[in-house]
Amino acid sequence: MKAWEKNVRRVVPYTPGEQPKQKNVVKLNTNENPYPPAPAVAKKLQEIVYDDFRKYPDPNASVLVDAIATYYGVGKDQVFVGVGSDDVISMAFLTFFNSEKPVLFPDISYSFYSVWADVYKIPYKQPALDANFQLVKEDYMKENGGIIFPNPNAPTSIAVGLDVIEEIVKANSDVVVIVDEAYVDFGAKSALELVEKYDNLLVVQTFSKSRSMAGMRIGFAIGQPELIKAMNDVKFSINSYTMNRPSLELGVLAIEDDAYFKETCKKIVATREWTMKELTRLGFTMFDSKANFVFATHATVPAKEIFEALRENGIFVRYFNAPRIDNYLRITIGTDEEMRTLVNFLEKKLSL
Amino acid sequence: MKAWEKNVRRVVPYTPGEQPKQKNVVKLNTNENPYPPAPAVAKKLQEIVYDDFRKYPDPNASVLVDAIATYYGVGKDQVFVGVGSDDVISMAFLTFFNSEKPVLFPDISYSFYSVWADVYKIPYKQPALDANFQLVKEDYMKENGGIIFPNPNAPTSIAVGLDVIEEIVKANSDVVVIVDEAYVDFGAKSALELVEKYDNLLVVQTFSKSRSMAGMRIGFAIGQPELIKAMNDVKFSINSYTMNRPSLELGVLAIEDDAYFKETCKKIVATREWTMKELTRLGFTMFDSKANFVFATHATVPAKEIFEALRENGIFVRYFNAPRIDNYLRITIGTDEEMRTLVNFLEKKLSL
Repeated sequence: MKAWEKNVRRVVPYTPGEQPKQKNVVKLNTNENPYPPAPAVAKKLQEIVYDDFRKYPDPNASVLVDAIATYYGVGKDQVFVGVGSDDVISMAFLTFFNSEKPVLFPDISYSFYSVWADVYKIPYKQPALDANFQLVKEDYMKENGGIIFPNPNAPTSIAVGLDVIEEIVKANSDVVVIVDEAYVDFGAKSALELVEKYDNLLVVQTFSKSRSMAGMRIGFAIGQPELIKAMNDVKFSINSYTMNRPSLELGVLAIEDDAYFKETCKKIVATREWTMKELTRLGFTMFDSKANFVFATHATVPAKEIFEALRENGIFVRYFNAPRIDNYLRITIGTDEEMRTLVNFLEKKLSL
Repeated sequence: MKAWEKNVRRVVPYTPGEQPKQKNVVKLNTNENPYPPAPAVAKKLQEIVYDDFRKYPDPNASVLVDAIATYYGVGKDQVFVGVGSDDVISMAFLTFFNSEKPVLFPDISYSFYSVWADVYKIPYKQPALDANFQLVKEDYMKENGGIIFPNPNAPTSIAVGLDVIEEIVKANSDVVVIVDEAYVDFGAKSALELVEKYDNLLVVQTFSKSRSMAGMRIGFAIGQPELIKAMNDVKFSINSYTMNRPSLELGVLAIEDDAYFKETCKKIVATREWTMKELTRLGFTMFDSKANFVFATHATVPAKEIFEALRENGIFVRYFNAPRIDNYLRITIGTDEEMRTLVNFLEKKLSL
């Protein structure tokens, strides 16, 4: 051990999904959108003035904040933007979760939550989802230092109703409740409509899934102005300029084309329903998905075995070697053609 | 006060330099480069494939790490990249400065250091520079939890010799010493050559100044592999994908064109020398600058008054209302034409 290592922060980092370097794979492992961003993004990309790169971007990210505020019909002082929703949620942990009491999130949910809690030394508890992987709302009515859960949940794909969310937010007015809506555009009901009513509710969304902009790193949070100001104060204490010029300029175009957005979401939902029917036919069971992925387990063949067979054949899905979910596969919804390739392969493999 | 506010992290954020929204100003306030990035960046910008935006970027930022490693002749495992050097230094504070003993940095230096220490609750002390704003090396031979200083220093523009840096690094082998070289390419000697010799030395640089890429947000650190691994572990505990696709693709081109880089640095140094002569003629005194800015004080007219007069006339420089430096102006070196505009204005104003 080096002498300086005694002062090093000890962490177990989050493991992102594999980004295979070979081409021609069927990539259904990181919940990316199979369709490109809105066409106006391509046009704007050609118009970016390279000479401007020498100048800092706007530290307030005003053009993007304004576009998001306009789209969702909220005030400009109600929107926080960051480098993907991971950056936004990380900043929210640092800003709001400074209690001695434990922050609460489900045992099965986005596995980054416990990593953020660990890196920032925030105590936490993970109430167990019930046997059907449903949120048990009573578990969130106990003393805590804050609450976060994804809706729809990841990796289960299950959505919780707005009535349950409202009960949880209402019962916890002394802490901040974060609803992580990374996948909300694929069929769940957003908690955005509750933001005006509750000053302790922060709703986080991302451009990475439904807006096909994972490669641009854009996430945002909406809440009442006091929440957003507290987050911006912390953000400006870490990095003044987080959003680079292309993110700002292209992000605006990605949110403005509502027709394209709705059309691609609808296509993904249709492909999901087809995929679920086919997987059921092949002996899988899965939850009613409101996301751009399904969470499936097979009646007889172990998930790990299927995962590996798929991988060897250039089809990447996600497998979590974790308690309670180690016999499930999280399969991103790609194009119709990609899902047919998956189904055809599984059909052959499972009939052997 | 809202009920949830008791758990909010209390901070006093860093104030970045003003980014005026009007056009046609002479902007000498945020140390941006007056010349565009390398021409190959413009070409590559036209080749970016917009369809790829739907996919996550490489979380390891391999193409950019490789390009930086190649340029500086170090291993790929010796390079950490982040969203500007602010992101890199912030990550280094969080990774390495976890002692109960105070981190040390000069009283006059980059004002973000104390902000990072505050937001991460790191104790710190700020030994005073001497009356000539020189670093007093003995102050850094005392018990501490880590050391950071800029070289050249900001906002003073003064460089410290490699011999002094080596003495400090050597005397502090039980903590990490960070040399913040944001401005090193304009005339100071880099500590990079000491990296092989000292496992506790981290050198941080940026694409924002000498490489004209402030708008793209790219910074990096070089150190021995153990240091870089510790930083990456923390980075992967906060945000897997910090560098977006355009940053990665365009950053590579910005570092590969060495001839253009050297030519623009040389031009800025020549303009700096001319500016210093002219300012001296007008009654200013300033330090021997090794940066792309000068730090100047006038014999009779208060800095604040000059700052305000310049601002009213569309010439932006930086004024810090802080102890010991509140009669100085930090003036970025722009093009020859911009500096002539500045000098002409000052000539008129000061002769009134």
